[in-house]
Amino acid sequence: MTKDVPEQGSFSAKDYHDPPPAPFIDPGELTKWSFYRAVIAEFVATLLFLYITVLTVIGYKAQTDPAKNLDQCGGVGILGIAWAFGGMIFVLVYCTAGISGGHINPAVTFGLFLARKVSLIRAFMYMVAQCLGAICGVGLVKAFHKTYYNNYGGGANELADGYNKGTGLGAEIIGTFVLVYTVFSATDPKRSARDSHVPVRTLSLYDFKFVCFNVLAPLPIGFAVFMVHLATIPITGTGINPARSLGAAVIYNKEKAWDDQWIFWVGPFIGAAIAAFYHQFILRAGAVKALGSFRSSSHV
Amino acid sequence: MTKDVPEQGSFSAKDYHDPPPAPFIDPGELTKWSFYRAVIAEFVATLLFLYITVLTVIGYKAQTDPAKNLDQCGGVGILGIAWAFGGMIFVLVYCTAGISGGHINPAVTFGLFLARKVSLIRAFMYMVAQCLGAICGVGLVKAFHKTYYNNYGGGANELADGYNKGTGLGAEIIGTFVLVYTVFSATDPKRSARDSHVPVRTLSLYDFKFVCFNVLAPLPIGFAVFMVHLATIPITGTGINPARSLGAAVIYNKEKAWDDQWIFWVGPFIGAAIAAFYHQFILRAGAVKALGSFRSSSHV
Amino acid sequence: MTKDVPEQGSFSAKDYHDPPPAPFIDPGELTKWSFYRAVIAEFVATLLFLYITVLTVIGYKAQTDPAKNLDQCGGVGILGIAWAFGGMIFVLVYCTAGISGGHINPAVTFGLFLARKVSLIRAFMYMVAQCLGAICGVGLVKAFHKTYYNNYGGGANELADGYNKGTGLGAEIIGTFVLVYTVFSATDPKRSARDSHVPVRTLSLYDFKFVCFNVLAPLPIGFAVFMVHLATIPITGTGINPARSLGAAVIYNKEKAWDDQWIFWVGPFIGAAIAAFYHQFILRAGAVKALGSFRSSSHV
Amino acid sequence: MTKDVPEQGSFSAKDYHDPPPAPFIDPGELTKWSFYRAVIAEFVATLLFLYITVLTVIGYKAQTDPAKNLDQCGGVGILGIAWAFGGMIFVLVYCTAGISGGHINPAVTFGLFLARKVSLIRAFMYMVAQCLGAICGVGLVKAFHKTYYNNYGGGANELADGYNKGTGLGAEIIGTFVLVYTVFSATDPKRSARDSHVPVRTLSLYDFKFVCFNVLAPLPIGFAVFMVHLATIPITGTGINPARSLGAAVIYNKEKAWDDQWIFWVGPFIGAAIAAFYHQFILRAGAVKALGSFRSSSHV
Repeated sequence: MTKDVPEQGSFSAKDYHDPPPAPFIDPGELTKWSFYRAVIAEFVATLLFLYITVLTVIGYKAQTDPAKNLDQCGGVGILGIAWAFGGMIFVLVYCTAGISGGHINPAVTFGLFLARKVSLIRAFMYMVAQCLGAICGVGLVKAFHKTYYNNYGGGANELADGYNKGTGLGAEIIGTFVLVYTVFSATDPKRSARDSHVPVRTLSLYDFKFVCFNVLAPLPIGFAVFMVHLATIPITGTGINPARSLGAAVIYNKEKAWDDQWIFWVGPFIGAAIAAFYHQFILRAGAVKALGSFRSSSHV
Repeated sequence: MTKDVPEQGSFSAKDYHDPPPAPFIDPGELTKWSFYRAVIAEFVATLLFLYITVLTVIGYKAQTDPAKNLDQCGGVGILGIAWAFGGMIFVLVYCTAGISGGHINPAVTFGLFLARKVSLIRAFMYMVAQCLGAICGVGLVKAFHKTYYNNYGGGANELADGYNKGTGLGAEIIGTFVLVYTVFSATDPKRSARDSHVPVRTLSLYDFKFVCFNVLAPLPIGFAVFMVHLATIPITGTGINPARSLGAAVIYNKEKAWDDQWIFWVGPFIGAAIAAFYHQFILRAGAVKALGSFRSSSHV
Repeated sequence: MTKDVPEQGSFSAKDYHDPPPAPFIDPGELTKWSFYRAVIAEFVATLLFLYITVLTVIGYKAQTDPAKNLDQCGGVGILGIAWAFGGMIFVLVYCTAGISGGHINPAVTFGLFLARKVSLIRAFMYMVAQCLGAICGVGLVKAFHKTYYNNYGGGANELADGYNKGTGLGAEIIGTFVLVYTVFSATDPKRSARDSHVPVRTLSLYDFKFVCFNVLAPLPIGFAVFMVHLATIPITGTGINPARSLGAAVIYNKEKAWDDQWIFWVGPFIGAAIAAFYHQFILRAGAVKALGSFRSSSHV
Repeated sequence: MTKDVPEQGSFSAKDYHDPPPAPFIDPGELTKWSFYRAVIAEFVATLLFLYITVLTVIGYKAQTDPAKNLDQCGGVGILGIAWAFGGMIFVLVYCTAGISGGHINPAVTFGLFLARKVSLIRAFMYMVAQCLGAICGVGLVKAFHKTYYNNYGGGANELADGYNKGTGLGAEIIGTFVLVYTVFSATDPKRSARDSHVPVRTLSLYDFKFVCFNVLAPLPIGFAVFMVHLATIPITGTGINPARSLGAAVIYNKEKAWDDQWIFWVGPFIGAAIAAFYHQFILRAGAVKALGSFRSSSHV
């Protein structure tokens, strides 16, 4: 290994390969158990995500209701709610990354589909599973909190008073951009090569499948969700995940939640598309064009 | 190493082995110091877990008691209590993972026993050590906080007013499922192989013992505990750990805590069993059945 | 590899190389796409940093305004604001480390320039991009929060009542020292060699480019920012980032914010310079001088 | 490497070596710059630790003083103070681990001295540097907060009303045990071997110096400090670090702080000694005695 030091000029195209783009439609996928297993994992993860987070929201509002309780500081606060969303994404991405890629969010699936990381059929099935999981997760919370659930807003995303629809849409677009940009950065195969502390030359295509989702990736992804919630809970309650918004709206089923629902689909999908564009055409495409200058680009 | 790239078809059964299931009863275990050392480590870890967390609960309630103190915001809040539980699990799993596997929770031990990761005798001894440690840990808190301990509920798990037993049981089942599912994901040997950035082919049975519990595993496990506490403290005070519930009930010793005690044993054990089933028969068994399609399953 | 154990005396200069200092002016840089890509990444990252953090500050103040709202505990608190700053730095350094080095702060760029890690032209362009990004980020917040923005101070850094300018300057100097010292520690190539668990001998110059910014580095950097905010928000609102202070001042545009602006440039630049000096001349230079005693220095 | 799989019986004493115990007195150390550099690093780290944490404490008390301010929820809370202590230890241990071992605490130095990890002269010099650094750090806070510093207790450790000295001593002993036990677990060379995902056989004595302090270690150490502060701030303000308690007492200089000072030296030193005993004689010595059964001990 000590002798295996590449020479100055040896950084050839052969040393670093992007995985080939996922096919648009891949019929072979449908014959494999691993595909259905991934869909099940997305369903279960989104169910658990909504269950824990909406339960935290309802529990917080029940505890700090001035009509019932004088201990207004007893609840977990908006900080606790933001932790619930970010922390659960960290845990669930960690748990499902090796099974399904750990999307748990139609906007993430959409962004990865645009970047040709997943096939159309997989993207569609994931989104269906995520939405069903979200509905079941919020349904569980309603079953547990019969009396409180509707009083306390059901965890539904709605535009807060005093903000117009454009502001809400903008907040969702930028928030989802932050999340999907982090997902792209964390799953960049070039990054994984760098992070794994293995000289790029010794990584083959075979290895890429294994290192694609590097060990630390779920943590910044979870933190990105946490950060966006801190910033935009006062504006929209923070969607950045259409399945989360749909699930809460279906179970809560009030007019206001349905009226604003389009914001939580259009915003996240636009944000994810911008992030995919930024990553593929500004950050990565540049890297390909300027392969010759690659080695000087990693200052610090 | 650069030449050592496996060919497309070389992913044979030989490359990836599950460790063999733990024997049901392994008399050889009882002759080894490492077994007793592990039992001692579980005892000490559960003692420290209950000591720190129940002390946080009592300290918080003492500080925010309106009868004594006007600074109702002075305490650490439910968010701080949730951090205490999750953070201690992170620290203690990190410290004891190499000695005992870092269970610190009879429900985790039960789930790993069902998955044949530990023998029956080891599972039983761990549970006894965990329960004794929990009792001693809460006992220390009572000794330190003589006057406050009983006034402030002793950190015991009880169903909150307004929730029926079914809700409490359901909350414990799902909460423990989240925890034990995370434990299984984090200790999955296939995951460790993937995370360790070492091509699977170079890992032998010999290495598996060392990589089984990968470096980052304690962090998502601690976060899972943190998340479940954020969500279910308002409902049951959050058990998801029968030793924790038993220890607090033994020292607090009030009727209500004993009446609800069964919820905090039945719920976690059911949740752990479902998690073991989900991991072994849905996520992993699928992997075995579909070995041929394995390599296409790790998209993203 | 087992045979590859270096002898006692084999720790030669060949085994460990610092990367050569960056040239003062490197015209070649300007011809490469990777340079412009890095500048774009700094702009976008600083924009997102200011957008999320100032939105959190304004949202918090809007929610806890006694004139509007009785739920004074409803907001995220100063703890939440400190998390927003620290957490965003963690996420953004993680995302941009491989593209631009992840500075997102003119003081960090200045410190790394003093240590000859970046060229003058790169340092200058980064600072321009960071300041423009910060202005755009705060501008977005003002556009979203038209009515609240000016009422709630616009997230601008100002010396709090009761503190003199010397105190504010001192707080900024020490706070930036903590941050830049952490950045130097995290990006130290010798540390990376150690952390990567690869014997130093097998690391060549070629590898250094890849391991320079090790996997865990963004986390302590983010925590350093979090810590400094906890400590100095009551004094100056915490700058330690001239772009952040400038961006808020430009958009808020009140006299007091401009009067104190110099503190948030002079303080961070002095702090960064001291950190660069401490790291290069006390910690690292010593290592070079005492190369013979190097191996005994890593006790514990 | 693929051929390099050790046979079943090849786990010989040669494969795994503890580093030799540090000499009681090592005159050679005094001739090396790396020794003085380590002492300087301990001084600077302890100074920064006390500066940030005590500033957070004073700032919190100033903001929530009912005489001055109606926004009692505006401060960072006890949760924020606990984060300040734990987070700074994480950052500073990360930064100084490679220079001095990252003790920043005489109790940690004492525990590592008992375990023969540092020489007597190094232990003594570290403690002196830590105490001086702590005094300077608190002195800086006093200089910044002239008016508030004494009013708000100066961050000094004192037994709270209603607790007797035995309780305070017990809280300090157990708290320090948690911290030093975590330090031992994190720096255990056997753990490092396991965590580094490198088969033990390929690690030589030469490598141990580099892997001894593994990458993730500072995080659980910081969390241990965070946890202990959550639990015992209401009892003693939480010392578990004699330098921290001494520094605050010297600058605050009130009778009560000096009367209780012995608790914050005797308690931590006893706790550290118990942790050293537990790790060396229960956990590690057992490992040595039962080397033959080693491989079956790492279930899970």
